[in-house]
Amino acid sequence: MNTAAIYHRPDSEYAYLYTENLIHLRLRTARADCFSVSLVYGDPYQLNEKDWYKTTTPIKKILTTDLYDYWEIAITVPYRRLSYAFIITGYDNTSVFFTEHGTLPVNDFNLSMENNYFRMPYLHEIDRFKAPEWVKKTVWYQIFPERFSNGDSTNDPKDVLPWNSKNHPGRQDFYGGDLQGILNNLDYLVDLGINGIYLCPIFSAKSNHKYDTTDYFTIDPTFGDKKILKNLIDECHKRGIKIMLDAVFNHLGDCSEQWLDVIQNGEKSQFKDWFHIHSFPVQYEITNDFEHSENKNYDTFAFTPHMPKLNTANTEVQNYILSIAKYWIQEFDIDAWRLDVANEVDHHLWRQFAEVCHGLKKDFYILGEVWHSSQSWLQGDEFTAVMNYPFTDSIKAYFIDKTITLDRFVSNLNSQLMLYRKQTNQVMLNTIDSHDTPRLLTLTKGNKQLMKQIFAFLYLQQGVPCLYYGDEIGIDGGMDPDCRKCMIWDPKKQDLEMLEFTKQLIKLRHENQMIISDGVLNWAEIDSLSGTLVFERSLVEDKLIGIFNTGHDHIFSPLSGELLLSNLSSIKDNNLIIGPEGFAIIRV
Amino acid sequence: MNTAAIYHRPDSEYAYLYTENLIHLRLRTARADCFSVSLVYGDPYQLNEKDWYKTTTPIKKILTTDLYDYWEIAITVPYRRLSYAFIITGYDNTSVFFTEHGTLPVNDFNLSMENNYFRMPYLHEIDRFKAPEWVKKTVWYQIFPERFSNGDSTNDPKDVLPWNSKNHPGRQDFYGGDLQGILNNLDYLVDLGINGIYLCPIFSAKSNHKYDTTDYFTIDPTFGDKKILKNLIDECHKRGIKIMLDAVFNHLGDCSEQWLDVIQNGEKSQFKDWFHIHSFPVQYEITNDFEHSENKNYDTFAFTPHMPKLNTANTEVQNYILSIAKYWIQEFDIDAWRLDVANEVDHHLWRQFAEVCHGLKKDFYILGEVWHSSQSWLQGDEFTAVMNYPFTDSIKAYFIDKTITLDRFVSNLNSQLMLYRKQTNQVMLNTIDSHDTPRLLTLTKGNKQLMKQIFAFLYLQQGVPCLYYGDEIGIDGGMDPDCRKCMIWDPKKQDLEMLEFTKQLIKLRHENQMIISDGVLNWAEIDSLSGTLVFERSLVEDKLIGIFNTGHDHIFSPLSGELLLSNLSSIKDNNLIIGPEGFAIIRV
Repeated sequence: MNTAAIYHRPDSEYAYLYTENLIHLRLRTARADCFSVSLVYGDPYQLNEKDWYKTTTPIKKILTTDLYDYWEIAITVPYRRLSYAFIITGYDNTSVFFTEHGTLPVNDFNLSMENNYFRMPYLHEIDRFKAPEWVKKTVWYQIFPERFSNGDSTNDPKDVLPWNSKNHPGRQDFYGGDLQGILNNLDYLVDLGINGIYLCPIFSAKSNHKYDTTDYFTIDPTFGDKKILKNLIDECHKRGIKIMLDAVFNHLGDCSEQWLDVIQNGEKSQFKDWFHIHSFPVQYEITNDFEHSENKNYDTFAFTPHMPKLNTANTEVQNYILSIAKYWIQEFDIDAWRLDVANEVDHHLWRQFAEVCHGLKKDFYILGEVWHSSQSWLQGDEFTAVMNYPFTDSIKAYFIDKTITLDRFVSNLNSQLMLYRKQTNQVMLNTIDSHDTPRLLTLTKGNKQLMKQIFAFLYLQQGVPCLYYGDEIGIDGGMDPDCRKCMIWDPKKQDLEMLEFTKQLIKLRHENQMIISDGVLNWAEIDSLSGTLVFERSLVEDKLIGIFNTGHDHIFSPLSGELLLSNLSSIKDNNLIIGPEGFAIIRV
Repeated sequence: MNTAAIYHRPDSEYAYLYTENLIHLRLRTARADCFSVSLVYGDPYQLNEKDWYKTTTPIKKILTTDLYDYWEIAITVPYRRLSYAFIITGYDNTSVFFTEHGTLPVNDFNLSMENNYFRMPYLHEIDRFKAPEWVKKTVWYQIFPERFSNGDSTNDPKDVLPWNSKNHPGRQDFYGGDLQGILNNLDYLVDLGINGIYLCPIFSAKSNHKYDTTDYFTIDPTFGDKKILKNLIDECHKRGIKIMLDAVFNHLGDCSEQWLDVIQNGEKSQFKDWFHIHSFPVQYEITNDFEHSENKNYDTFAFTPHMPKLNTANTEVQNYILSIAKYWIQEFDIDAWRLDVANEVDHHLWRQFAEVCHGLKKDFYILGEVWHSSQSWLQGDEFTAVMNYPFTDSIKAYFIDKTITLDRFVSNLNSQLMLYRKQTNQVMLNTIDSHDTPRLLTLTKGNKQLMKQIFAFLYLQQGVPCLYYGDEIGIDGGMDPDCRKCMIWDPKKQDLEMLEFTKQLIKLRHENQMIISDGVLNWAEIDSLSGTLVFERSLVEDKLIGIFNTGHDHIFSPLSGELLLSNLSSIKDNNLIIGPEGFAIIRV
């Protein structure tokens, strides 16, 4: 047995409260190395009872990656306290007792020693990672406000360009999109079926993307005002649509009052400790690249001189940020914050931030922008979820770039699921494109069948789908700013077939949300040769089956159940015939 | 190569800020499996520079356990941001690129992909685990106040027994020890050389051990009053002695005002939500065992009906506990809290607790009683350290019980060090016995040579030694209450030779504290056959060498340096001859 590969960590994603009384325990072993795992457990204060450890409970293997098998069990205990360890039997017929002190021989002496056991000393509801129920039920729609709809031409920015007048918008273009435009199109969104809007920043800022905030307490005047926002949120709530605002707390824009004060007053500025300034006056060397500078004497986001980094260890800055968090929840009843560059802000602040938000609204959703593994932000006291970029990357690498094999793809997805608690996975934001990345239609080089296949795959996974405005009607676009084209409202120019497909997919997601969020995942067929990928999601009596043809030939499958949605697929003699880039979703 | 055994976790004890600018990175590989490890790292926003990843930095192997090799490197980065990954070469001559996404082939494509790298997105000083400098320099002395010295007979409890009148104190005995007794003996403690007093609970409580607190805001009248405590603390501080008080926040005593109110008023009690009560009136079935009850309808510590568990999710209880934490720091200037049953109280409370304590006193020390691995409490925002019981257990198992081999012993100690950050290891409380366990002299069955060897070993390890009152003058005692005998003050009855030895050891510890706390550990010789254990602690030019004979024959070693302390050892022709249970400590 490969004992060195065995892993467990108490009070982490390997051992946690899932619901109020249900404990999930995970164990990792080397792939295809172990035949069985069982759990020995009891109340820490009852381990002196005779032979208590002779009762063991088998644990199931749930997922496999390229290197590992993962085992998981859900248990309840009578006194909210738990001592536990594992008996692992390898295919080589050896057994080990895996404990707090590593692997030991399986014998009565070792099994009877109280200190050998892992501990979950007391299961506190207050420490449990809690994800709001509504998030699981949400399909998000991401709007880049400057480009969605111009509902009020009186607030247009100077030099506004005619809507959609350029096929490739420039970095500094303005087209006049605003909040009134969103309000005007709520019927469209309701009809589409989404029930959450993720709004890119709307606070005052100079740029068209508004990630260079100058004032967090005002709406950018080219987007509208607070009255319109309030109206928009109220109308959304009436329609069961949640609202997530986007905030940048890592840095300020260099046109913010605070930074301008530092430029003007140098060391005497009341805001000098709001940033990380190494000497005065603040300065930088201009380069050819607007976003890059050399020899700055202050810290910034990346190397751009225009986004001075906030000193979030300063209590004034903390209070400022927390007051912003509060203000938009209290006054506008927003449902979620999306936090830009969230990984570069300190944990200390995010803990306070979560306390404030959840204090005001118990089921508030906090979404961090973190591009890499995010365990230390997802322990329950900071973010509810992060944008699931590694998941996105795997999908792109397999379906589009073909740089990874089918086995590696499934392995990646499984690895990703094993990084977090189940309740975290259920509310991760699964997106395929955004204002920061090329659009899917461009990534697929215009291949709409592949696009549908990818969307269908995404919508069947744990986590919450997020649709980037316009993907549903066939907008394309490369890396930003190209992915920020104006929304197309002329039905003649919209891809109505893609729109109809998207509606069906969103409907399917809503109708099967329980299975998709909570159900057990089983990769039923992973056939690299034919490119057949079949997976099942099961919840009690219900089962969804997804069949994806990622190969070059037709694949065949008996149709046993109700065909919910398919593409490039036909039925003959109760058999499904699915062509390349096709898929079928069946409910049993 | 055993790739499945490779482990790393960003933002944990595997990747952390050690000092303000120094990052420590650790990697685990299977034992004796890998030949070399190097680090590829850069600023996350400079990974687009050509060939940046071609510069790599070798990492040293620092420790080995039964299953693993551990590698560690300390680096600094220019912009407080870090992307990093590892190139690992096995003894089988294969190499892998170990990344955020597991092991990948070493090639330009994989090395150039930004998303493959682990991230420490921004190194925040506010999130750094900070241990107060003074703790490293401390040798603690643990006092069980009822048994140390009776300095004031006017406050003696009812039915007080004559000092030391029983060889085996009973569970309910009182002997009249008090704070005045400690005050009277400060000269003794100064002479002994200790510079920290860890006082078992002194707040009002019924029992002799006072772990059943009835009022956290008063000193138990049989121990004295606040004036005496203030005086004691002031006098200690004058002598450079720090004071740690012991508090039980997991539960209250059943004679506390709050619990009595619940008993009296049931569901109408203002304190009904202070506890975990399942139905009213509160009740339990009496058993033969005072500490055990069946069918309680409220949660308690273990199964004892006399210690109802506090509901620390209740903000009233939180505020109550925090006000206690504050009070004794603000009014009495205590230096540390030792938290009883700390693992069974929620993280949420401990985070607030740490904020409050460190807000009042920046270099405050918070010591949790946790008997098992404690990673989730030691991330920097809860405890400074825990009582290092697994370390103690290994020492007992090897030196006394002989249930583990020398190899396993060293492996255990190394494993233990690899559970935590270096700054945590430096301030762990290393004890060998306490009010909760048999005394060392009893464990060694009266073998004072072995006792000296064990103490010498303990004082040379990272972490802070804690001496249990009376060990230094040869008090014995089995499991509690036997380990709580009265202190012996009659020099004729004291083991003066052990006292002298202890003084020398404490002196040695103080004089070499920097090397012991900060120095690199190298196990120079681990010879199971002869029982020879030699280790070196090195800091820049300085080196301490500990030579321990744990076998049955004499061992021989050239004496190269200054012999600081030894036992059962002699020198012949500049060679050390160390007998069984002997040791020598040399400074080079």
